[in-house]
Amino acid sequence: MENYNLKSLLVEIRDKKPLVHNITNYVVMNFTANTLLAMGASPVMAHAVNEVEEMAALASALVINIGTLSDPWIEAMFLAGKTANKLGIPVILDPVGSGATSLRTNTFRRLADELKLSIVRGNASEILSISSSAATTKGVDAVHDVEHASATARNMARQLGCVVAITGPVDLITDGEKVVRCKNGDAMMGKITGTGCAATATIGAFAAITRNPLEAASAGLAYFGLAGEVAAAKSKSPGSFMISLIDALYEITPDDFRKRAKLE
Amino acid sequence: MENYNLKSLLVEIRDKKPLVHNITNYVVMNFTANTLLAMGASPVMAHAVNEVEEMAALASALVINIGTLSDPWIEAMFLAGKTANKLGIPVILDPVGSGATSLRTNTFRRLADELKLSIVRGNASEILSISSSAATTKGVDAVHDVEHASATARNMARQLGCVVAITGPVDLITDGEKVVRCKNGDAMMGKITGTGCAATATIGAFAAITRNPLEAASAGLAYFGLAGEVAAAKSKSPGSFMISLIDALYEITPDDFRKRAKLE
Amino acid sequence: MENYNLKSLLVEIRDKKPLVHNITNYVVMNFTANTLLAMGASPVMAHAVNEVEEMAALASALVINIGTLSDPWIEAMFLAGKTANKLGIPVILDPVGSGATSLRTNTFRRLADELKLSIVRGNASEILSISSSAATTKGVDAVHDVEHASATARNMARQLGCVVAITGPVDLITDGEKVVRCKNGDAMMGKITGTGCAATATIGAFAAITRNPLEAASAGLAYFGLAGEVAAAKSKSPGSFMISLIDALYEITPDDFRKRAKLE
Repeated sequence: MENYNLKSLLVEIRDKKPLVHNITNYVVMNFTANTLLAMGASPVMAHAVNEVEEMAALASALVINIGTLSDPWIEAMFLAGKTANKLGIPVILDPVGSGATSLRTNTFRRLADELKLSIVRGNASEILSISSSAATTKGVDAVHDVEHASATARNMARQLGCVVAITGPVDLITDGEKVVRCKNGDAMMGKITGTGCAATATIGAFAAITRNPLEAASAGLAYFGLAGEVAAAKSKSPGSFMISLIDALYEITPDDFRKRAKLE
Repeated sequence: MENYNLKSLLVEIRDKKPLVHNITNYVVMNFTANTLLAMGASPVMAHAVNEVEEMAALASALVINIGTLSDPWIEAMFLAGKTANKLGIPVILDPVGSGATSLRTNTFRRLADELKLSIVRGNASEILSISSSAATTKGVDAVHDVEHASATARNMARQLGCVVAITGPVDLITDGEKVVRCKNGDAMMGKITGTGCAATATIGAFAAITRNPLEAASAGLAYFGLAGEVAAAKSKSPGSFMISLIDALYEITPDDFRKRAKLE
Repeated sequence: MENYNLKSLLVEIRDKKPLVHNITNYVVMNFTANTLLAMGASPVMAHAVNEVEEMAALASALVINIGTLSDPWIEAMFLAGKTANKLGIPVILDPVGSGATSLRTNTFRRLADELKLSIVRGNASEILSISSSAATTKGVDAVHDVEHASATARNMARQLGCVVAITGPVDLITDGEKVVRCKNGDAMMGKITGTGCAATATIGAFAAITRNPLEAASAGLAYFGLAGEVAAAKSKSPGSFMISLIDALYEITPDDFRKRAKLE
């Protein structure tokens, strides 16, 4: 990953403050907006069918998150997504809870089928919920075995036709060929709500800057994971950790990022 | 309350991480999810009519909160509630603002009539808003008089056919026969939004573990109230209190809980 | 501004705890509710078409915010607004993102046309998005020039028939004749989401107490801006700043407010 210029990507986000349009769930809207602002991007949340196309057209990236789904929101996701596709704006998808209910699984499948996605980020069970391959049967456990995990992630990337980021103790990011591993992060990130969603939004901010989606997903997960590490060094309980995480997203310098990103 | 094994209930929550399905209001979703995560449970928020039955069926408790109501959400509350009833999953109701508008009062009444509720938690005016008894006419003031308060709470529990928890300076929890008083809590809890809602969600986490609803409601209020006390000892202003409260929900050990719960 | 009795307005808010009904966006609901509680007011959020009229009738001020708009919410804004108008309850509007999409711009225009607004607060581009005057063509830049800015703000106040508050490095508040400048505030307020929305809610709390809308808007912006200054003196990063801001809204005494308000 030496060739990914993490430092300059972060400089560019802070310089350009790209607009990231989020159609996301109610639980994490505030935290996601604060994540994007703290790192230097400009968030906007809009979900109405009669405005998402116009809003998506203004944005440099569109982040779709299915965490608190309902039919009008699904319709808006497609409208915004198609506008973004038409204009070459990258679309990043977070299939929250796919596999738990058929509404979520079907929505993930339809979004993946009907939109041209740049990047999908989820945990292993979410990503594998729409897999058609035999690898799926090993499910979540598969990712604990590095060889299996890489093969599974590559398969999913090929099936979905986009970069796939499977997050866990070690994150795997792949375009179906190359596989990047990200080792940034801290277990405290699982103790507060919305860190997965905010990581996806962070990827959105990087995707607004670089048209290389493998680079955007890798940089986003490394940056958000590093913020988690910085926060965990200061705060041992989840309330204060949440605050330290937003602080860290703001405080990490481009040089820190370059030095402390653990991508390989 | 010696016979309620508070310590082991908390151990069990942290061990099993029960899934608590919340159909709750927009204002408190993030705070509620963080409350449940911090104490050791697993929150999920889902409200679409075309997924709540499936989601409720996966959960160990269903928490319904009417804080920002609209018709599609009401429909979802009934669908999820009926599924939970069919499967024996406890349903906990928070009738936020009942008495303020007829939509809320009627929704509370209909939920109480058509669902088999395990526990209802509210302040005195919310609980009494659907009372048919003469005791109601004394309204909120009634609860300042311990004798009247106990009689009123017992009446409401019999009317509603479930455990009723009336929270205030001292909380009253009753199944219509026994009355438990909880003296945990701190006045700072009224200075931030969502503490009532989060207390109800905390009850939901205990209800996921014990099938004794009087125990679940008592343990939940004692636990959340104790977290409020711990937070108030650290933070004197509401922003930092809110963060300390989430921290405390995470830091309180099963032994602390056993020692410091004030149930009688 | 000597004649505005800032100290007694704040004393009165804390004494009466006026109910402020908010129809606001999902992103800021929690932060807005905590802002109002911390300063001493009583927030309620309600948006259903079948309850907003009843809720608005109970309130001492109605705050309408178009940040995450959709058709049912727009309908509710008109229903609540008309009830408030009928009962003489002040209506405060925050046209978030007006100018970005036609749904927002049109909704702002329709709300301004069909309701009797007391106060509109927005940044320059939001306020000017529905201007019909030639001054608009200078857009946001106009407000950097104090003379132009004042003229533009006065024009907008006359066009909209209400007090207009244009916030920026220096806030301008005008009823079309008098122009008040507020110099409270800190650049950190732009680093977290929802400070504009919360400032509007703060104006709502003051509008619930005084029937002079120029005074309410000036006092609200001075108070919220002062809280931003107090918070910025303590916290240099956005997560902790957000918490310090809520703390400051609670801690500022009526005397502090009188002494440190920068209105002229």
